[in-house]
Amino acid sequence: MTSTSITDLATLRTRLRDLTQPDPAAREAAIARDAMLTKPPGALGRLEDLAQWYAGWRGEAAPRITAPQVVVFAGNHGVAARGISAFPPEVTAQMVANFEAGGAAVNQLAREAGARFSVHAIALDRPTSDFTEGPAMTEAELCEAFAIGWDAVDPDADLLVTGEMGIGNTTSAAALAALLLDGSSADWTGRGTGVDEEGLNRKTAVVASALVRHRPEVTDGLDALARVGGRELAAMAGAIARARSLRVPVILDGFICCAAALALDRTVSGALDHAVAGHLSDEGAHARLLEALGKTPLLELGLRLGEGSGAVLAIPVLKGALACHSGMATFAEAGVAEGG
Amino acid sequence: MTSTSITDLATLRTRLRDLTQPDPAAREAAIARDAMLTKPPGALGRLEDLAQWYAGWRGEAAPRITAPQVVVFAGNHGVAARGISAFPPEVTAQMVANFEAGGAAVNQLAREAGARFSVHAIALDRPTSDFTEGPAMTEAELCEAFAIGWDAVDPDADLLVTGEMGIGNTTSAAALAALLLDGSSADWTGRGTGVDEEGLNRKTAVVASALVRHRPEVTDGLDALARVGGRELAAMAGAIARARSLRVPVILDGFICCAAALALDRTVSGALDHAVAGHLSDEGAHARLLEALGKTPLLELGLRLGEGSGAVLAIPVLKGALACHSGMATFAEAGVAEGG
Repeated sequence: MTSTSITDLATLRTRLRDLTQPDPAAREAAIARDAMLTKPPGALGRLEDLAQWYAGWRGEAAPRITAPQVVVFAGNHGVAARGISAFPPEVTAQMVANFEAGGAAVNQLAREAGARFSVHAIALDRPTSDFTEGPAMTEAELCEAFAIGWDAVDPDADLLVTGEMGIGNTTSAAALAALLLDGSSADWTGRGTGVDEEGLNRKTAVVASALVRHRPEVTDGLDALARVGGRELAAMAGAIARARSLRVPVILDGFICCAAALALDRTVSGALDHAVAGHLSDEGAHARLLEALGKTPLLELGLRLGEGSGAVLAIPVLKGALACHSGMATFAEAGVAEGG
Repeated sequence: MTSTSITDLATLRTRLRDLTQPDPAAREAAIARDAMLTKPPGALGRLEDLAQWYAGWRGEAAPRITAPQVVVFAGNHGVAARGISAFPPEVTAQMVANFEAGGAAVNQLAREAGARFSVHAIALDRPTSDFTEGPAMTEAELCEAFAIGWDAVDPDADLLVTGEMGIGNTTSAAALAALLLDGSSADWTGRGTGVDEEGLNRKTAVVASALVRHRPEVTDGLDALARVGGRELAAMAGAIARARSLRVPVILDGFICCAAALALDRTVSGALDHAVAGHLSDEGAHARLLEALGKTPLLELGLRLGEGSGAVLAIPVLKGALACHSGMATFAEAGVAEGG
């Protein structure tokens, strides 16, 4: 599928169902290699599972991560006018400039992780429609943003992180999760970048209003994404789907990234098998969302920044797992006696 | 204190009590800087605490980590003859050769983290005495190993990880923790590198026997270290103490490293203020030991390898924290509106 064929939701759905799968032979070869490495069986814990999972997706018994990519998408939200963020909407564009200048947290973390970084501002002068009054995006707008995400993935990348910036987007993500999963608006609504009690009440009311309007009619993940999502969420979904088609493993970030990923997961079952959860964020509903996705986070450090920051911080864990798996000596090579 | 003055325990104790302290002004300056960075207050969670803690120890408002050091110590244990490990004692020397050749897990992780690596085999041909029959080490032997650790720290390092290798040393660590803290031998004994049920029973009996012999007489952490520790544990304690004197922050590794650190902590209160816990290992009693040390682990990935591996895997977390803290733009620099 090329991005030019992403023009309507029906076609997109059909194409997404053709899920690329990992290579079972490479995974088996990785499991066999693990058993020969100079360590007690299982002693590297989750690093061993990660290495074997990654090997399957890359189709190699002993791969390494040398070209991680971090891509951040930015969008503006009509619903921001309802006073649901601690920051004014202008901050989205200001932070895009900060990303471009290399001054944000994710820039520092991407540099540390040796990752290529890019940011895509999507129609910041055209906020999505207020989803309490109707769909946030038309089908064409959703497809356009999805295609931007699709095209943003470097085919030579060997690991992808998608991040976001968009004042109001925890409200959008909360509505998306609430539409697709069980629970009340309060279950899915949190403080985001730090709204006060009144702001939180407004946010919860906005999500409740979205549920009343959209829940009776929602059909699947992509439909929900159009109804209450944002352009940056659609682009993240597009990038994660594109990574799947390229067999590029993904590290999911926090609440907003996971809500965008959920839209894929609830459109095509198994659509996130090539993804791991980078971290558990401090946004209250993230744990519940990860549970719905069946993902166990790699890190838990109380981050609640977005931008992809928590997932980028987890890149070195995955790099370390592959460095051990593919770089360690075997018992035979090192002349070390095996246990028994 | 130079290593040449580490000749007897009484002198060592006296010298250790003269604890180097962090710079409160640098810490305050780091806290002030954090408030100006382009992110919502607190949004980097624990990374913010880590950066401020590190800044205080390094005496700089905006430091970076550029010279981490990983040092692994190896020793042999008389108690290994009691069948308490899944591996034969020869593996200690074989793994030292593997470390020297760059083939072990910790080598790969240290390379990924950009850390300088060295290994110190300490008198492998002279195992410690079987501590069920008497003290593992004489005072002179303890001081000699402690001094080796002391001298192993590079004064130009800006972060230290101490790792270990020693067949039988989870038994030694369990006895050390049990001697210095509450709980039965079973509370502190686990599977180590993977002993079977019978091996675990022998291990628990060995620790119980150590408690009967040594508990009535133990005076402090260093005394306990001589009674049931090992040369590699004493060297880790020496390196951690030396890092303190140099204001080099430390990332603690798993159960054995933490038991060695406990010996310092129970000799001089506050001796580990310059250390964070790198990870929670899969060795059952590690959680209890971290609790006794008052440390919250950075990672929890089910590792149970030792070698310093879990702590080295945590180096990028700390590097990332400082990269954000010292590299991000301020609101004023980036022209980003602050929230309210």
